Amino acid sequence: MDIESLLEKIRSGDRIALGRAITLVESTLDSDQEMTRQLLKHLLHQKKALKVAVSGSPGVGKSTFIDQLGSHFTGAGFKVAVLAIDPSSLQSQGSILGDKTRMLKLGKDVNAFIRPSPTQGLLGGIGRATFEASLLCEEAGFDFIIIETVGVGQSEIMARHLSDIFILLMQPGAGDELQGIKKGIIENADLLLVNKWDGDQKLIAEKTKAAFDGVWPADKSNILLISAAEDLGIDTLSEELISIKEKIDLDLNARERAAYWFVYQIRNLLMKRLLQKEGYVLQELENRIEEGNLHYSEAIEQALKKICL
Amino acid sequence: MDIESLLEKIRSGDRIALGRAITLVESTLDSDQEMTRQLLKHLLHQKKALKVAVSGSPGVGKSTFIDQLGSHFTGAGFKVAVLAIDPSSLQSQGSILGDKTRMLKLGKDVNAFIRPSPTQGLLGGIGRATFEASLLCEEAGFDFIIIETVGVGQSEIMARHLSDIFILLMQPGAGDELQGIKKGIIENADLLLVNKWDGDQKLIAEKTKAAFDGVWPADKSNILLISAAEDLGIDTLSEELISIKEKIDLDLNARERAAYWFVYQIRNLLMKRLLQKEGYVLQELENRIEEGNLHYSEAIEQALKKICL
Repeated sequence: MDIESLLEKIRSGDRIALGRAITLVESTLDSDQEMTRQLLKHLLHQKKALKVAVSGSPGVGKSTFIDQLGSHFTGAGFKVAVLAIDPSSLQSQGSILGDKTRMLKLGKDVNAFIRPSPTQGLLGGIGRATFEASLLCEEAGFDFIIIETVGVGQSEIMARHLSDIFILLMQPGAGDELQGIKKGIIENADLLLVNKWDGDQKLIAEKTKAAFDGVWPADKSNILLISAAEDLGIDTLSEELISIKEKIDLDLNARERAAYWFVYQIRNLLMKRLLQKEGYVLQELENRIEEGNLHYSEAIEQALKKICL
Repeated sequence: MDIESLLEKIRSGDRIALGRAITLVESTLDSDQEMTRQLLKHLLHQKKALKVAVSGSPGVGKSTFIDQLGSHFTGAGFKVAVLAIDPSSLQSQGSILGDKTRMLKLGKDVNAFIRPSPTQGLLGGIGRATFEASLLCEEAGFDFIIIETVGVGQSEIMARHLSDIFILLMQPGAGDELQGIKKGIIENADLLLVNKWDGDQKLIAEKTKAAFDGVWPADKSNILLISAAEDLGIDTLSEELISIKEKIDLDLNARERAAYWFVYQIRNLLMKRLLQKEGYVLQELENRIEEGNLHYSEAIEQALKKICL
């Protein structure tokens, strides 16, 4: 594969080329690393897309919400890329439903591109290469890049570092332990939405919003009640995001993101090198612990002695 | 502090000594590392405690459930230690509610010990030293060690590696996206409970259980409907866990856990050493990216060249 012609295709809107490039940056093969870096170096790095991270617990309705939000964007004439969680099994690696099923409208929208990334045990569905994938989507000319994550603790910090705007979706009734979780989970969010404002959960959703209103900072946009299933409240939100896209300093955000993910990636790469070199030492000690022939803490001492950095 | 007398105190049931030892193993100071290893080496490593991990999304009712389950254990004559998540802010580091408030019954139970550990941005509330803390609780003679975690993806794998039994708490209504999440999230669990089987959520809880029944493996214990708030169904569960404690090979599990956490800890220690030695190289490259003077991928190339392993 020739980098220049791959990039040309991506820029001209070729979805297959974009998909292939994302597969390349996601690859863990050593032989693909050099090509990945060449590809990323040749990007124009023009910042035009608003990156929107959408997080929330499993079952809160993230994919339905993204389906609706993205359709409002395409309806307003924009092009939308979705970096979605592939709900594949951590153990069996098998995908259960395709993303066309999870995002019914966007799945057949010519102005939308959905890329499921296998979580493979990684944090909150944020893949090792989600940052790089978002750079490629930007090069392909998308106006909005929506990044789906499952949020708890650390993964919210990562989601914030992937996006210009971080949206947190809440479940009706999730206010029960609110006193315990409010700060750590919520303070990373730019926008807080309570979903399922419909059917038999409508009143609970309103109660939940009221509970969160008390702890939500006054300088942030008001908490919104939405129904992803019935497409309520999402039009207003999409208009707000379109106006944010015009006003925000995308370039400054992009530089900060690149610095963050540089540190993240280089730590992974260095650890991988180290394990390639010294893995056999660790393996031997691990085996002796499992056999009951070595204490945990003695193994750590021995490893630190044997592996000199 | 003298290791032998500290251990003596821990074994004699001195809570303050146990708390101090946990603080020591949680310490990130280099000067405490050697003492930590000495302490861990002198443990008797007798496996008598059943380790139970309790996981679930924020708001599902984990602390109320643990409060009830632990009280059933102490009511049956057992001693219970809880390694709880300190619901402190990731950013402000401040605790909002003390754990005595979160676990009302256990908080004043002389046969219970509650240790909140700050999550400090770590995965799902599993602290860097939760494994070590559980070893110390075992040395102190507790019969059950309950480990509270917030579960999504990776943190569930870690929770499984901390425990003999892994309990996953589900929210009523969380079945909506069940098709998408079922395997990855659930297959690590030994026991699945649907909480809030009470009040206006009772029917939704029953529907949720029915939905999960279809995907839950037949060779695992039946999914249970419980109400932590009203203490329904938890007596049966505690009896089941007491009988599991008698039957299970605690020693085999303990060796496998030690091997897993050895690899985890040694990787962290090696990375820390590496960053102490080479951190300035990364810092300089990071600054240049932020200033807009260096491409992300060029920074990675330069770092890999400059840092030889």
